[in-house]
Amino acid sequence: MNAAAATVASLTVSLGERSYPIRIGAGLLTQPKLIVPHLTQERVAVVTNDTIAPLYLAALVDSLKRIGVRTLEIVLPDGEQYKNWQTLNHVFDALLEARCERGTALIALGGGVVGDIGGFAAAVYQRGMPFIQVPTTLLALVDSSVGGKTAINHPLGKNMIGAFYQPRLVLADIATLDTLPEREYSAGLAEIVKYGLIRDAPFLDWLEANMARLRSRDRGAIIHAVVQSCQHKAEIVGADERESGERALLNLGHTFGHAIESGLGYGTWLHGEAVAAGMVLAAELSARMGLLSSTEVERTRRLLQAAGLPTVAPRLAPERYLELMGHDKKVLAGRLRLVLLRRLGEAYVSADFSHEKLVEVLETCVADG
Amino acid sequence: MNAAAATVASLTVSLGERSYPIRIGAGLLTQPKLIVPHLTQERVAVVTNDTIAPLYLAALVDSLKRIGVRTLEIVLPDGEQYKNWQTLNHVFDALLEARCERGTALIALGGGVVGDIGGFAAAVYQRGMPFIQVPTTLLALVDSSVGGKTAINHPLGKNMIGAFYQPRLVLADIATLDTLPEREYSAGLAEIVKYGLIRDAPFLDWLEANMARLRSRDRGAIIHAVVQSCQHKAEIVGADERESGERALLNLGHTFGHAIESGLGYGTWLHGEAVAAGMVLAAELSARMGLLSSTEVERTRRLLQAAGLPTVAPRLAPERYLELMGHDKKVLAGRLRLVLLRRLGEAYVSADFSHEKLVEVLETCVADG
Repeated sequence: MNAAAATVASLTVSLGERSYPIRIGAGLLTQPKLIVPHLTQERVAVVTNDTIAPLYLAALVDSLKRIGVRTLEIVLPDGEQYKNWQTLNHVFDALLEARCERGTALIALGGGVVGDIGGFAAAVYQRGMPFIQVPTTLLALVDSSVGGKTAINHPLGKNMIGAFYQPRLVLADIATLDTLPEREYSAGLAEIVKYGLIRDAPFLDWLEANMARLRSRDRGAIIHAVVQSCQHKAEIVGADERESGERALLNLGHTFGHAIESGLGYGTWLHGEAVAAGMVLAAELSARMGLLSSTEVERTRRLLQAAGLPTVAPRLAPERYLELMGHDKKVLAGRLRLVLLRRLGEAYVSADFSHEKLVEVLETCVADG
Repeated sequence: MNAAAATVASLTVSLGERSYPIRIGAGLLTQPKLIVPHLTQERVAVVTNDTIAPLYLAALVDSLKRIGVRTLEIVLPDGEQYKNWQTLNHVFDALLEARCERGTALIALGGGVVGDIGGFAAAVYQRGMPFIQVPTTLLALVDSSVGGKTAINHPLGKNMIGAFYQPRLVLADIATLDTLPEREYSAGLAEIVKYGLIRDAPFLDWLEANMARLRSRDRGAIIHAVVQSCQHKAEIVGADERESGERALLNLGHTFGHAIESGLGYGTWLHGEAVAAGMVLAAELSARMGLLSSTEVERTRRLLQAAGLPTVAPRLAPERYLELMGHDKKVLAGRLRLVLLRRLGEAYVSADFSHEKLVEVLETCVADG
């Protein structure tokens, strides 16, 4: 298998001198020639976790070694609950003990947590080292590996400490999805559905028609969904790198979702699960504001259910929801801003919603007490 | 006193859309109208330390409050030994507890340590908040407040974790130098001498002729020296923001200096003191390489002595020096690079020096065992 045959698609995130390619295909992990042009020295540090390491670390590292690239392997514990300062410091310790330089590249091999920690480590180690994303979960493939958002959590809020730091390359090997547990696979589908909801009604139609193929991991369907999603993400990030405008739309369901994750304790619900339930809450609020019909809310819910996702948020006191949502980074001058749906396929950011209706949604559209 | 009368000089760091002004004058601290145009909301977090707080915090905060800007005050312990993750986390805790947003500006009121920690906190809090430098030490005025380098130390190396993050404004109130202890004032003079050594022979002449005036804190002399220094720094940073080329020249004496600071334990020697002794070592090595005459080395030493600075580095085993110097961020592909002097007023970066001669300098040009 050569690179040309295996590279199914190549997209570009256009950010001037910080532009970079996304390569999407099966078996890319063992094609170091795709990586080497993005290195500034023949040494890399690979950051991964203890779930992914036994599956894919040797394949990546061995293929790099075979062409003369020295590697340092840093294996972190798996889970959102480790996306914190202690784990980040562990990466710094390892990089410094091995005398990695600011020219050494850091490769994040794993899902969103590995990408977020690895990317943030790369952003601040010696004030910035080259960074490459090798996502191994559907969520990371279609969302977190593209766009340069990196972060760790703080006890008072998710992703509170971080940086906008673009990778030099995103190498998306969809063969790694073969080993992804069902629950995590579904969590990735939530972000794919999101692109349809916020800006692509025809893609939403396609998803409704092809959800069964996606659930059965049909490779053709996966590639179509991943390419569409990455294309949307690349367009939005290219237009608004630092989230001053359109990029905020990518947070549909996320303000609710972060409150769910944080309220239940990180790691109880997967990020994509919380986002799915959060998108339903956003749709419900949009409906109560006269924007969506109940049919459209129902369509949203059904699609997410078909993706194997929870669509009813857990019950927390509405005040608790509001408090947790108040920590959101989209809060502007004390005012909570939410992503709402004008119709299926068109989202907007608004601080101009009824507080009463929000509380009503948080009281009535959540799980029974 | 109005703003126009007090603003002695205004320079610009030219970095495209990230360009920003440096305002230099006496009494600027109590002129909030210089600050307000750089805020995106009427709220600021002021980070300072427990030495500066009793002297200047109230003046700054009261003048901001008087025009309706809400303030959060974060007071850190004073000292390089606190430039670490624990202190940084204290800033994050305070910002999050007070629900500061990504639009809240962070003002660093203090010396290099406060600017470095405050700037790094601003760089990564919610992935970046507006940042303003209000330097209160000579070293911060002429060096660390300009150029966007922010960092904390790691047990294995100084400034190892950080970001390039430009302020929106540098407000340099030279009246704050009135309370600066003699030793710290001299430490600032080291960086001023550095600009003469690396790129401005006439300024070096001026410094030799005016060092007594500078030592007596003659305001006219200070303003000339600060403006010249900031102009040099602004030019270099504008040409090479991320230290891929010319900016490395600003590190004359710093690789030796960092080894001194780290080898003796942070806080034993002041940064400027270590840099002064480090610049003499760089001059000695340059002389042994046939670049400088012994007269030029002696001239360097005398000027630094006149500035009240140590010019003999402490004795450490040469291997220890080399080990500590090996952690330097300028190390490229395992090769140590040093800033050397081609003549007084012209520096260059080189990995092409004799290792033997370096060891000889580390053995013979340091304090007696």
